[in-house]
Amino acid sequence: MKIGIDAMGGDFAPKAIVEGIVLAAQELPAGVTIVLIGQTAVIQQIIDNQNFKGSNIEIVEANETIEMGEHPVRALQSKPNSSIGVGFKLLKTGVIDVFASAGNTGAMMVGSLFSIKTIEGIQRPPIAGFAPQIDGSLAVILDIGANADVKPEMLAQFGILGSIYAKATMGIESPRVALMNIGEEPEKGSVVVQQAYKLLQEERKINFVGNIEGKDFFKAKADVIVTDGFTGNILLKMGESLYGILSERGVKDDFIDQTNYEAVGGSPIIGVNGNVVIAHGSSSALATKNMVHLCHRIVESKLTEKIKKAFA
Amino acid sequence: MKIGIDAMGGDFAPKAIVEGIVLAAQELPAGVTIVLIGQTAVIQQIIDNQNFKGSNIEIVEANETIEMGEHPVRALQSKPNSSIGVGFKLLKTGVIDVFASAGNTGAMMVGSLFSIKTIEGIQRPPIAGFAPQIDGSLAVILDIGANADVKPEMLAQFGILGSIYAKATMGIESPRVALMNIGEEPEKGSVVVQQAYKLLQEERKINFVGNIEGKDFFKAKADVIVTDGFTGNILLKMGESLYGILSERGVKDDFIDQTNYEAVGGSPIIGVNGNVVIAHGSSSALATKNMVHLCHRIVESKLTEKIKKAFA
Repeated sequence: MKIGIDAMGGDFAPKAIVEGIVLAAQELPAGVTIVLIGQTAVIQQIIDNQNFKGSNIEIVEANETIEMGEHPVRALQSKPNSSIGVGFKLLKTGVIDVFASAGNTGAMMVGSLFSIKTIEGIQRPPIAGFAPQIDGSLAVILDIGANADVKPEMLAQFGILGSIYAKATMGIESPRVALMNIGEEPEKGSVVVQQAYKLLQEERKINFVGNIEGKDFFKAKADVIVTDGFTGNILLKMGESLYGILSERGVKDDFIDQTNYEAVGGSPIIGVNGNVVIAHGSSSALATKNMVHLCHRIVESKLTEKIKKAFA
Repeated sequence: MKIGIDAMGGDFAPKAIVEGIVLAAQELPAGVTIVLIGQTAVIQQIIDNQNFKGSNIEIVEANETIEMGEHPVRALQSKPNSSIGVGFKLLKTGVIDVFASAGNTGAMMVGSLFSIKTIEGIQRPPIAGFAPQIDGSLAVILDIGANADVKPEMLAQFGILGSIYAKATMGIESPRVALMNIGEEPEKGSVVVQQAYKLLQEERKINFVGNIEGKDFFKAKADVIVTDGFTGNILLKMGESLYGILSERGVKDDFIDQTNYEAVGGSPIIGVNGNVVIAHGSSSALATKNMVHLCHRIVESKLTEKIKKAFA
């Protein structure tokens, strides 16, 4: 297995990314290689500084970098040798089994849709994150930002995709799928979620448990939380902000620690023809290390193959 | 000034409500009377049990109660002598200056729209809540649940309404109005918020400071947070859940204490021809007491008159 990582993407790249990769490389089982994509000399220097003696890190040269603020489509077209551009080429040709970057999220999304493309039958691939729960578990939440505007059919598909993801990577036999809403009753909420409720209820592929409200977000009432990319993004980022706020105030608590994004470090785009993971823009070495482990679980669990099968 | 309170609405009514009223009555300035609406004998018994000796509580009989799960329109039509029905009659005829209830939110909304009616020029009245901020202040957030589906023009009006509310009840001279979004740039977010951004930016009546993200929700970047009733409701309820979760875990922190809804206890429907406040369904005596003080501030600040003037 080869895990491809953009060494140049992220607020603290390449240093934090490469340092995280060195940490991960020492924990991965035999047969798993990390392929770092970026400026070889710079990457090699950081690896050498870590006194890394292993043989499971490779480097593929990419001499351009797409910056955070760049327009995704234009950047990918004008910089074919960017670390993100090269990453998608390696993913498409099967050189790597998964591609992850903490860089320009838009470019990762555009690269996924135009390079490896959406799986047939899926309307719009969502990004799936994790929401910490009071019982110590993590719930899958999707979409967390790819689709600000959704249709009921898209939300119903998010339910199926999230269910497959939770089962594949977390080993939950029959994940409880819930719809984020502003009331428990089926007739509550926006026109879109009211219709999505009916579709989710009729969907035989999933274990739909109904609506949950904002007050239930942390309460371990679901394994998969379905929502649009607008609400999901705001909820997740608000949740993530708690760790920083309370750490600064000196509050130490296991549950609050779980809201630290570093614990997972990455969110896959699911429903495309390949494994793609978006890492947090401000990824630290710890976040990067944990993101590599998530990539490993995603490849090992054959997530994309399972999704293709479900929508075939 | 007469503050009308539904004694029968809420999970712990009438006991918690009446006990909260007795607490509030002892703190209110001279000239302010609380009018309790509900079953006189029951209410009087609770007041007597509190050994209340003041003269600033009156009771108006209402022998029916609208239950939490009832259909709002049907309930108001079939129960004209319900505490909510009587409350709106007293508000419309000017007997009371504000009407508040912890009961059926839908009935409070329908009562507002059909009895005292929307102020001319306002598309859809929102419900305004408070979001606790890390600097100890409170930001107004609206809409928190009246309108799950919104148009850009509605969000722009929420900005104006929230600004007037923050200025009137919190004394902020030029409240910073922000739009809740999934990125800072104007072109981010759903089609509706992208258009709302432009309208808010062009609106001369307010001090628009741009988009804020979920991570900024608690960060004191705005005095007024504009959002649709779907997102606002979910965010607020998720925020409120923190107090319960962390209290149970033994975490004590001033900021977390602020997420306790009891500190404010009520949210006005703004943009209707009268002062209407919705209290939390599970209102305690403390929440009720603080809600009465909010009602007092709303009447004293001439909130509704100021809104009418702004939209004249």
